[in-house]
Amino acid sequence: MNDNTSNKAGLVISAHSADFVWRAGGAIALHVERGYKMHIVCLSYGERGESAKLWRQTGMTEAKVKQVREQEARAAAEALGASIEFLDLGDYPLPSNNDIIFRLADIYRELQPSFVLSHSLHDPYNYDHPRATHLAQEARIIAQAEGHNPGQKIVGAPPFYCFEPHQPEQCNWKPDVLLDITSVWDKKYAAIQCMQGQEHLWEYYTRVALQRGVQAKRNIGITNAKNIVYAEGYQSIFPRVTEDLA
Amino acid sequence: MNDNTSNKAGLVISAHSADFVWRAGGAIALHVERGYKMHIVCLSYGERGESAKLWRQTGMTEAKVKQVREQEARAAAEALGASIEFLDLGDYPLPSNNDIIFRLADIYRELQPSFVLSHSLHDPYNYDHPRATHLAQEARIIAQAEGHNPGQKIVGAPPFYCFEPHQPEQCNWKPDVLLDITSVWDKKYAAIQCMQGQEHLWEYYTRVALQRGVQAKRNIGITNAKNIVYAEGYQSIFPRVTEDLA
Amino acid sequence: MNDNTSNKAGLVISAHSADFVWRAGGAIALHVERGYKMHIVCLSYGERGESAKLWRQTGMTEAKVKQVREQEARAAAEALGASIEFLDLGDYPLPSNNDIIFRLADIYRELQPSFVLSHSLHDPYNYDHPRATHLAQEARIIAQAEGHNPGQKIVGAPPFYCFEPHQPEQCNWKPDVLLDITSVWDKKYAAIQCMQGQEHLWEYYTRVALQRGVQAKRNIGITNAKNIVYAEGYQSIFPRVTEDLA
Amino acid sequence: MNDNTSNKAGLVISAHSADFVWRAGGAIALHVERGYKMHIVCLSYGERGESAKLWRQTGMTEAKVKQVREQEARAAAEALGASIEFLDLGDYPLPSNNDIIFRLADIYRELQPSFVLSHSLHDPYNYDHPRATHLAQEARIIAQAEGHNPGQKIVGAPPFYCFEPHQPEQCNWKPDVLLDITSVWDKKYAAIQCMQGQEHLWEYYTRVALQRGVQAKRNIGITNAKNIVYAEGYQSIFPRVTEDLA
Amino acid sequence: MNDNTSNKAGLVISAHSADFVWRAGGAIALHVERGYKMHIVCLSYGERGESAKLWRQTGMTEAKVKQVREQEARAAAEALGASIEFLDLGDYPLPSNNDIIFRLADIYRELQPSFVLSHSLHDPYNYDHPRATHLAQEARIIAQAEGHNPGQKIVGAPPFYCFEPHQPEQCNWKPDVLLDITSVWDKKYAAIQCMQGQEHLWEYYTRVALQRGVQAKRNIGITNAKNIVYAEGYQSIFPRVTEDLA
Amino acid sequence: MNDNTSNKAGLVISAHSADFVWRAGGAIALHVERGYKMHIVCLSYGERGESAKLWRQTGMTEAKVKQVREQEARAAAEALGASIEFLDLGDYPLPSNNDIIFRLADIYRELQPSFVLSHSLHDPYNYDHPRATHLAQEARIIAQAEGHNPGQKIVGAPPFYCFEPHQPEQCNWKPDVLLDITSVWDKKYAAIQCMQGQEHLWEYYTRVALQRGVQAKRNIGITNAKNIVYAEGYQSIFPRVTEDLA
Repeated sequence: MNDNTSNKAGLVISAHSADFVWRAGGAIALHVERGYKMHIVCLSYGERGESAKLWRQTGMTEAKVKQVREQEARAAAEALGASIEFLDLGDYPLPSNNDIIFRLADIYRELQPSFVLSHSLHDPYNYDHPRATHLAQEARIIAQAEGHNPGQKIVGAPPFYCFEPHQPEQCNWKPDVLLDITSVWDKKYAAIQCMQGQEHLWEYYTRVALQRGVQAKRNIGITNAKNIVYAEGYQSIFPRVTEDLA
Repeated sequence: MNDNTSNKAGLVISAHSADFVWRAGGAIALHVERGYKMHIVCLSYGERGESAKLWRQTGMTEAKVKQVREQEARAAAEALGASIEFLDLGDYPLPSNNDIIFRLADIYRELQPSFVLSHSLHDPYNYDHPRATHLAQEARIIAQAEGHNPGQKIVGAPPFYCFEPHQPEQCNWKPDVLLDITSVWDKKYAAIQCMQGQEHLWEYYTRVALQRGVQAKRNIGITNAKNIVYAEGYQSIFPRVTEDLA
Repeated sequence: MNDNTSNKAGLVISAHSADFVWRAGGAIALHVERGYKMHIVCLSYGERGESAKLWRQTGMTEAKVKQVREQEARAAAEALGASIEFLDLGDYPLPSNNDIIFRLADIYRELQPSFVLSHSLHDPYNYDHPRATHLAQEARIIAQAEGHNPGQKIVGAPPFYCFEPHQPEQCNWKPDVLLDITSVWDKKYAAIQCMQGQEHLWEYYTRVALQRGVQAKRNIGITNAKNIVYAEGYQSIFPRVTEDLA
Repeated sequence: MNDNTSNKAGLVISAHSADFVWRAGGAIALHVERGYKMHIVCLSYGERGESAKLWRQTGMTEAKVKQVREQEARAAAEALGASIEFLDLGDYPLPSNNDIIFRLADIYRELQPSFVLSHSLHDPYNYDHPRATHLAQEARIIAQAEGHNPGQKIVGAPPFYCFEPHQPEQCNWKPDVLLDITSVWDKKYAAIQCMQGQEHLWEYYTRVALQRGVQAKRNIGITNAKNIVYAEGYQSIFPRVTEDLA
Repeated sequence: MNDNTSNKAGLVISAHSADFVWRAGGAIALHVERGYKMHIVCLSYGERGESAKLWRQTGMTEAKVKQVREQEARAAAEALGASIEFLDLGDYPLPSNNDIIFRLADIYRELQPSFVLSHSLHDPYNYDHPRATHLAQEARIIAQAEGHNPGQKIVGAPPFYCFEPHQPEQCNWKPDVLLDITSVWDKKYAAIQCMQGQEHLWEYYTRVALQRGVQAKRNIGITNAKNIVYAEGYQSIFPRVTEDLA
Repeated sequence: MNDNTSNKAGLVISAHSADFVWRAGGAIALHVERGYKMHIVCLSYGERGESAKLWRQTGMTEAKVKQVREQEARAAAEALGASIEFLDLGDYPLPSNNDIIFRLADIYRELQPSFVLSHSLHDPYNYDHPRATHLAQEARIIAQAEGHNPGQKIVGAPPFYCFEPHQPEQCNWKPDVLLDITSVWDKKYAAIQCMQGQEHLWEYYTRVALQRGVQAKRNIGITNAKNIVYAEGYQSIFPRVTEDLA
């Protein structure tokens, strides 16, 4: 994160090393194209809970799983044009403590993101995901506090978006933003293809993008319609401050 | 609505003839300044339920109440720069039927609004308000239907916002948009002062605007903060389609 | 309602002629003992939907069902010490229109109740119940309007409570008030026994009262505990205005 | 509905003449295969609001739209093995009144369904859909009432399921049942292809079925997994009565 | 748990040593009769928070309380036909950490349950109860992870049910399953009678069973009705996968 | 807390040393006037997260911030007539563990409060606030347990109220109690003025009190209205046990 010459930045906090691809790959590529520095933090590799295919190989060890998962995630980040770092905190369960919060707060302060992306608030299938969101939200609050490491530049109030979980209705996740990613779909799909260990998800998340694309067209309407084909859904945590309702 | 030379328009559907002032006066003035044609439809004058002060005058009749209420609302609309029309449907209770829906659908099709403002979805203190919203929403749907008055230009999918009710928490209303109206506050307050019959609300809604202003600053943060003093809150019905998350 | 010499009054709006007994019999008897005039309005006799036992008798007609139901309800009201009137609007489905609302508004204005009891807001098993609540709520609003029958005394803002439906969780009903009815249980049970056509409900609602009684004791705690045995649950619609939090 | 020789039946109440195909085609075909008489009631043809492609043809009239829509729906019902009837009530807006409720109650009583399928409880994009559900629910209640057309056989308490709306999260629809329709997918897709006027929805609802299929597999788990490929989601209104939790 | 000869099993995770009796005793006895191995895990004895009657005896110590509570629970489990184990983690507050999660995950993997029963998701009167549910849910997720103790047999996706809390509405608990326990009520009541320290709850939970029994009959309907007298309510966490909607 | 000669007491648990002033100052002063011993527990000084103005002074240290914050809070408590103690647990993040819970349970048992005030259940802007509520709620439960420090006097079930957060709708906070604090407003405003470090909040919370005052008048109604000018809103956690619905 030393090369922070860009004025605008976005932060993606991913519980496991592949989540950012399926759930926010389009947003990352799109904002990179628009000049943002996009930075991805993988809290874990998902080595225990989201690497089933690797574990079915003979002679597999946790170290090998992590290595493969890191390679895949680095390749995907590169395809999207983003920087990436790995905190290697462990998964299933992902831990939660003040050290992690302070580490993330440091990242917020150095990056000074204009917006933040992380997981849904609830997920009965996956407790690491909402825990990552909790960490990301609390770190954002700490990074705003004048009394935390006084002298550092505090952060403002960047919008915080929850990206799409695997079974959205079961997670009580409801998108209030549909992001048109048609122009960067090729990059997202290239990143998806880096995830060799989860090939069963490639077509699942391609269909998600197509469904959200149809829905995005529905929410603009016939008269204004651009040719939206692919989209990503997001749920906002905070109200949007604007001067334009159209 | 004959003078529809502007390319962009906004529609405000107000249950009673004063609601648009307290709840959306800033949005109206702001978008007028930005070149929008803003059109206000008052479903009733609020002659029975929201004219207590007038009724306490001796010799008052419903016709006189309506006349005064219309004068006040016309003056307020003028102060905001908006056009206004009165459907005179009666209030307490506001009626709801297909004729009203079709009449509103005609207005949608003629105006082709880029966005629509109406009341909250619930209000245990006021049944006319959510009924107005229901009418405004169903008319929007009818105006989208190819088979309704075939040959007319249908409308797209304009965003629909619920403006702030009198007791927001009791109405389960939660703003997800904070609109900075600092630059047009003088116009909103001029419109508020046209409402001679409800002077007790002037300061109430000034305080609402100041509170929402403080909250808007909080949701941008110190580093980006503009000098927001006054704001209005809105709750979206539909997801926003965008290419920018910042 | 001519004998309105009492200063304080309570209004009960019951969809069918037996609902007030099971759901609010304790509140009625308790407030009668405390000097309130309690007035019950039965919107229908429940002749079609809640008189199964009667319909299974040979030669039964709707007129006979109504007659029996009225006799039972009058006896129950007498046992509780309340006045009662029957609007005979029909049930399954209960109608809803402005005439009914205005008629109820007249009752509000004449009675000037200090509080109002009606059904839950939702009930997937019974559409008449929430419709009665809707009528009772909208009539309350009309009765508050200065412009409705100007010259009549308007009502204030009496608290509005939803009494317990048959399957509370399925109706999304959540009691925030537990009313100790131990001292009047004998009157409530006497009223219950007037309902010859629904004997299967006697023990059901006795158990409801016992369960709510145990819960009421739990919410006072051991140190303050009175000997509460029977209680009724209510859900408030509006915030309570008070000077005492204990 | 004369040929009611089957002991078991299911009722599908569809706001417009195509909804049953996209949303419940699999359930219909599956239960037909299992020996159920499946009966579809189309409240309207969707002639005004859901026939955009037809209206873009020159010389189109409402009568012609209805005719085409009926032909398509009959073909689809035949492909699924179900009977179908058309109430031709009009759409956008779909009306709601006691006559319709009584007509549907007659259908309930004649068919004596073991379960009922209709739309979601909410839909901000389509007011006809929840109105159809409301009619279907209230008719079910009327059909249970001993005092409605005494002498007729009343219905029991058939489970009521809401099928999937077009934008599920926006409708606050959450499936608690995933129905495996893999074995009848070919029939559902044949029915889908009967809908010539809405070709843009074919692939949309194929993807819906694939996504629900993946989710169904997730909710059984690896050890029990059957080869589920296609599924439909449903939301129950009432609790399920059972003797088996596995 | 060595005697795992049964093919089918169910797991009950109880915060304190008596909860399984009041809340799930019927489900346990019923599934034992149907050939399931039912296994109960008591996270604590409830020695601090749910043994008031014992503590009022002179000379009582925590060790004695635990001993009595264990004897009662063993007797109840035996009456129901279930195996039982005690983790003795302490109560008020019940702890929560990874060691407990891993221990429970081991139990999941050894038992391979077809379904799991634990507490409600919320309880403002009792923080141990939802914490037990949280532990039970997270352990289920860990037990599904290929990377947790690789080589062990992972579990599938057993349905997870929340049994009834003491004050159901206050816990936002809503049953979507009503289990007919009429045939095993004698066994459940025998187990209840083993709980000498909480005699005040015997009749409370007998009434709960009777109320749920009446409700179960209501949700089948008159025509299909079996003679259900006693039932237990459950709230599902996950969607049910099925091929039958009747 | 040694001087516990009063029979009645109230407990206020404040995450940071100023929260009790803005959010509950009126309730504190009002109950002191009514003879209650009101005791405030400040879990932290808010030294890191809520002392921005102090940190902008040159040479500021955490020790100095705490000192100033304590002085301000002591002065405010004195202005309100309450006792106060400081646990100095640290903020941003506020810790949560059993030691804190047991310490608070000791305070509950010594004070034997008739009611408890703390923060809202949710706050996406401030994680310390709901954490304080969680600690306050769990400590209340522990203080009720016979097996916690046997021999001490346990507490009953004091009502628990959540006071108003900074952005109420965003916190899903909904007041069901409006407390008339008009008679003690001068004391609350005196306490507010002790908070030299947060002068920007003085007028914000004056406006909050005025808005809640207008709303309180609305919820009594014209006929009964006292001259309420200032009020505070509270959300109850538990149902109220009463014998009076008016």
